[in-house]
Amino acid sequence: MKRSLGAATLAIPSPVWVIGTYDSAGAPNLMTAAWGGIVCSKPPAVSVSLREATYTYANLVERKAFTVNVPSADHAEVADFLGIASGRAMDKFAAAGLTPTRSSLVDAPLVAEFPLTLECRLIQSVKLGLHTMFVGEILDVKAAEEILVEGLPALDRARPILFSAGEQAYFHVGERIGPSFRLGRRLLPKT
Amino acid sequence: MKRSLGAATLAIPSPVWVIGTYDSAGAPNLMTAAWGGIVCSKPPAVSVSLREATYTYANLVERKAFTVNVPSADHAEVADFLGIASGRAMDKFAAAGLTPTRSSLVDAPLVAEFPLTLECRLIQSVKLGLHTMFVGEILDVKAAEEILVEGLPALDRARPILFSAGEQAYFHVGERIGPSFRLGRRLLPKT
Repeated sequence: MKRSLGAATLAIPSPVWVIGTYDSAGAPNLMTAAWGGIVCSKPPAVSVSLREATYTYANLVERKAFTVNVPSADHAEVADFLGIASGRAMDKFAAAGLTPTRSSLVDAPLVAEFPLTLECRLIQSVKLGLHTMFVGEILDVKAAEEILVEGLPALDRARPILFSAGEQAYFHVGERIGPSFRLGRRLLPKT
Repeated sequence: MKRSLGAATLAIPSPVWVIGTYDSAGAPNLMTAAWGGIVCSKPPAVSVSLREATYTYANLVERKAFTVNVPSADHAEVADFLGIASGRAMDKFAAAGLTPTRSSLVDAPLVAEFPLTLECRLIQSVKLGLHTMFVGEILDVKAAEEILVEGLPALDRARPILFSAGEQAYFHVGERIGPSFRLGRRLLPKT
């Protein structure tokens, strides 16, 4: 017998992503978001949901561009800070000790210190309620050399942070389980 | 200097969720999906993106309901199988050794063996390209007692699976890093 927990955002795990935008004066800003995920393979697209009250919301609507920067576990304290402070009140890049890099593809800044960044062009906005879902087409992915294995990001090298919404905590990535699209073949009917 | 990896769905980590639907004949079906995430807090809502070619797509459009079932790492082989086989050709519940439970809230089946399920009513569909994004309002969350700590799902008890799209592999959840909305307070300006 299962217990009913009510209507709540308890999907697990959620990612910890840092959204990069420029404000109307051209100043780079950052905000941590956990409400998002990949939403399409062709074109490659990612969603991030933001409250209208955030500074990033207005920036994103105006610039029609954003970056999804993936912090490593080494940046957990900084990533948390970027989720509790507002860019209206301070230069969050400076306060966090991070370096903005200008994208050559979209009108949004990358975080130089983070191992992985998706450069996104806004293609859809869907107001759902407290949050508006922004869908960005991924125009390029920039990765630090040290997280790549055979040219692709390896989870145990990038060491992204996981968010657990119920207990309000961050977690590390653990051990590898096995290969996707192969692990379950044993259960396919014999032909 | 970062390396450009091209336009690709390399956001990390992605979840491994098993989507439950009924087909037109009322038979329960399952399909594994990694393209999804929470998209709104009020109303609580989750997105799942599906290709039109899948059996689940037609079921979801017809029934306007789905469940998001979170397998634990113990179910990794089964979860992978549910992503590579089609419900058109077989009873995937039976083939995977899983038990469908009828939801009292939405027209979709729950997986009895998995520790966490979100019961969702379809509220938005957005065709993006190869994938269509389905947004479901979360009407209730059902959880196994053994994953709860103080009434909420604990990541190290639920042990959900992580998907790494680039290297095509599954990973475990690792150690706890710290509390969200508190870890970064040290960086806030002194008042």
